[in-house]
Amino acid sequence: MTITSYNPRTGQANGAVEEMSLHEVRVVVERASGASAAVATGSPRQRRDWLHAVAAALEENTAELVELAEVETALGDTRLTSEVSRAAGQLRFYGDVAAEGSYLAATLDRPTSTTPGLARVNQPLGPVAVFGASNFPFAFGVLGNDFGSALAAGCPVVAKSHPAHPLLSDRLAEVARAALLDAEAPDGSLEMVVGYDAGLALVRDEGVAALAFTGSQAAGLALWRIANERRTVIPTYAEMGTVNPVVLTRAAAATRMEEIAEGCVGSFTLGSGQFCTKPGLVFAPAGTAAADAIGKALRQAMPRPIMLTEAIARSTAQGLEELRSAGARVVEFVEASVAGWCAPAAVLAAPIDALQDGSRLLEECFGAVAIVVEYSDIDELAAAVDRLQGSLVASVFTADDDADPDAAACLALLSPKVGRLCANDWPTGVAYTWAQQQGGPWPSTSAPSATSVGAAALDRFVRPVTYQSLREEWLPPALQAANPWNLPRRVNGVLQPVGATP
Amino acid sequence: MTITSYNPRTGQANGAVEEMSLHEVRVVVERASGASAAVATGSPRQRRDWLHAVAAALEENTAELVELAEVETALGDTRLTSEVSRAAGQLRFYGDVAAEGSYLAATLDRPTSTTPGLARVNQPLGPVAVFGASNFPFAFGVLGNDFGSALAAGCPVVAKSHPAHPLLSDRLAEVARAALLDAEAPDGSLEMVVGYDAGLALVRDEGVAALAFTGSQAAGLALWRIANERRTVIPTYAEMGTVNPVVLTRAAAATRMEEIAEGCVGSFTLGSGQFCTKPGLVFAPAGTAAADAIGKALRQAMPRPIMLTEAIARSTAQGLEELRSAGARVVEFVEASVAGWCAPAAVLAAPIDALQDGSRLLEECFGAVAIVVEYSDIDELAAAVDRLQGSLVASVFTADDDADPDAAACLALLSPKVGRLCANDWPTGVAYTWAQQQGGPWPSTSAPSATSVGAAALDRFVRPVTYQSLREEWLPPALQAANPWNLPRRVNGVLQPVGATP
Repeated sequence: MTITSYNPRTGQANGAVEEMSLHEVRVVVERASGASAAVATGSPRQRRDWLHAVAAALEENTAELVELAEVETALGDTRLTSEVSRAAGQLRFYGDVAAEGSYLAATLDRPTSTTPGLARVNQPLGPVAVFGASNFPFAFGVLGNDFGSALAAGCPVVAKSHPAHPLLSDRLAEVARAALLDAEAPDGSLEMVVGYDAGLALVRDEGVAALAFTGSQAAGLALWRIANERRTVIPTYAEMGTVNPVVLTRAAAATRMEEIAEGCVGSFTLGSGQFCTKPGLVFAPAGTAAADAIGKALRQAMPRPIMLTEAIARSTAQGLEELRSAGARVVEFVEASVAGWCAPAAVLAAPIDALQDGSRLLEECFGAVAIVVEYSDIDELAAAVDRLQGSLVASVFTADDDADPDAAACLALLSPKVGRLCANDWPTGVAYTWAQQQGGPWPSTSAPSATSVGAAALDRFVRPVTYQSLREEWLPPALQAANPWNLPRRVNGVLQPVGATP
Repeated sequence: MTITSYNPRTGQANGAVEEMSLHEVRVVVERASGASAAVATGSPRQRRDWLHAVAAALEENTAELVELAEVETALGDTRLTSEVSRAAGQLRFYGDVAAEGSYLAATLDRPTSTTPGLARVNQPLGPVAVFGASNFPFAFGVLGNDFGSALAAGCPVVAKSHPAHPLLSDRLAEVARAALLDAEAPDGSLEMVVGYDAGLALVRDEGVAALAFTGSQAAGLALWRIANERRTVIPTYAEMGTVNPVVLTRAAAATRMEEIAEGCVGSFTLGSGQFCTKPGLVFAPAGTAAADAIGKALRQAMPRPIMLTEAIARSTAQGLEELRSAGARVVEFVEASVAGWCAPAAVLAAPIDALQDGSRLLEECFGAVAIVVEYSDIDELAAAVDRLQGSLVASVFTADDDADPDAAACLALLSPKVGRLCANDWPTGVAYTWAQQQGGPWPSTSAPSATSVGAAALDRFVRPVTYQSLREEWLPPALQAANPWNLPRRVNGVLQPVGATP
């Protein structure tokens, strides 16, 4: 059995890769398990060096990787080139976060007359299965955020080759392995499986200690269920597409509707609308003709969204039909072009009363599609927002001056529904920094406190172990009195800055 | 329908409480939901004051509460009096942890030329359903660790009245509510439901945002499954009983077997063996007659374990039969006395080869029962430990001097299997401090990175929200430039000590 690679611009095959047998999956997981101890005991600074080496290898091979990615994804050279650069930056960032050492949460309670000496530190979980996304072949792919944060935290990674870019997946694993070998990372630090059944076997393999996934709700929840049926249940971190509501305040719509409409179209058509942070539902004050303004901006932009796979192109078109059946009307519609896997782009409008439990309008429509919903006042808006599912992100657009009377109320309404809340920024675009949060309430993420981007992404792949009454020489380096890794630690309840020793 | 309260020493009824209807459960959850915003926006210092008030009320009512607990649990006045004191101490501790503020993980990334300003802070999840344990009516009951850490983190609590101590549950809720009212905590900060069906309805109620449970694997996993079938799946923190292995090194057994045997019996018979941290499986070097020594110590101690409920007493006796069927032989057996809900106490021995996947020997037997297993060398021990399920805690006993050649190897074997690892300490007894970890790999805990005791217990009940490009006045206090709560924060990646402002 093989997986065929296709060019979305033509629908023609680029080539094919072999699927793995279940026996081969077992062998691959065994290799990762064999590397676990060495990856875990490497110091955070060593792991930083490994990740910096992979980052450099990505950059060195940019031209070749972008060429390969373009024929498999049609995302365009410009976007793909900047995505390689971002992916390299991410890997360096996760390495630096590991080296800083706060993620270890090293905590020492010296013994007292009534309590024993306790010392707590985060330990890597072991091999992490990584299911990357179709829409970000570099930043959320085989060498994406999940790979970077898992390896930084001390876990070997077993990636699944993505069926939308199998040739690139192969090449990325190859490039990374060569760099890891050069940097003296343990053999088995990065493994890969290929094929649908191989992916299921990976999730079920008792050698796998955690699961990270980026993609659709259907696929993410299916994997979450399988992981929950294992003999040893493992943590599943599935980051899934959502509607990502946007609210325009009355003052915003009154003072800068045209600018907002252009921004909106730019955001929901970015990457052919194939972002899990795509703004799918825009709440605008009644009587401001927001839907018409956004429709007009779409007509002017006239995108021709080429989708990553034939199945995605079909599902966007089908999603549009479902939204219409659920009560949305078409405001503006750009027909799919005939060449390749093109999908329509559209602005729809729906009455706010149609946003009821179970309505298709409350679910993501992957692709360059947005729905505009008018609200008459904040109370009506509040009731509608209350019925929304959890989303990764939301945005509020306000008047340019700082006296918008509805701004604070709109922000307060949306905060309980999301992991990230933007003011006057579009939700697409997720910076990798210390304060980032990519992950929100169910069903946007299977674990609402987890993030797949930013420094806290490492926290998903560790668990604390507390050592009670151990002699100094039996403690791991992170907990030794001399603090050989120069970590920030908490000693007897007091946070100690870097380099302090107890 | 009513729940009858029984005296375990006599089997006679103490009284009864009314079960709640499903409608009443809904009303109770609505009250907790109604309190959510006020509890969440209270400053950490306010919540500390609420918890300190409840702690003081517990202490003031110690005599009455102990009397009530004694007739429902038979745990004895001495133990119960110290448990009230511990419960009060815990509540103060969680309040102090909240006030310190690190649990908020406030993180600020100032905008740069390429990234927006991002500010991240942990937010309370909302109403937490708390299912306390039978075996610690105060420390893990209605006002136990879960109540303290949830309220400290800003979440109202809906406790379930425990069927093993329904009168005490009622009285604890009453005492706490009066104290919370005096301390000006929002009405609805603590609610309670009564009855089996009411408990299920609570877990299924969409107003509940998280679930905390302490008790048996059967009950914990059942609730976890129900929570996973909700429309909005919620985090479930189930801390469940496990075997908690103990390893005696060859040098330990050779030099101080008698002392270890006495300590072992003290630990596994403590509280009638009704501890989720009870040492259930003791690995001893072959040829050291450890089983006989521990059996002898049991004969000398001659405990008469009175169990919390008739069902528990029956299940201990039945567990002993199951262990014998699984290949364990009786080394020493103390018959159950005739009065009340007494269970046998026993030391068993089993061949190491009997510890195979699926064997009853690898599961907890709640009660004053321990199994001794001989190992011939470290390799054989390693293979057996590898087959163990995850446990809350393990202990290694070594020679008194610091030249025990097997100590480090034994510790390294057990570390991947547990949340806490003790050297020369018995596993029973869980101090509430900053470095504590009560929670280990599956199936000891449903979320292996969570702890139900210690400062990190608060982390279970929050999720991060990141604010992007918000004006200063729209940010919550924890993220404002002036740092009005005087929190430790991370600013542009650098950890700032308490009181620093960016």
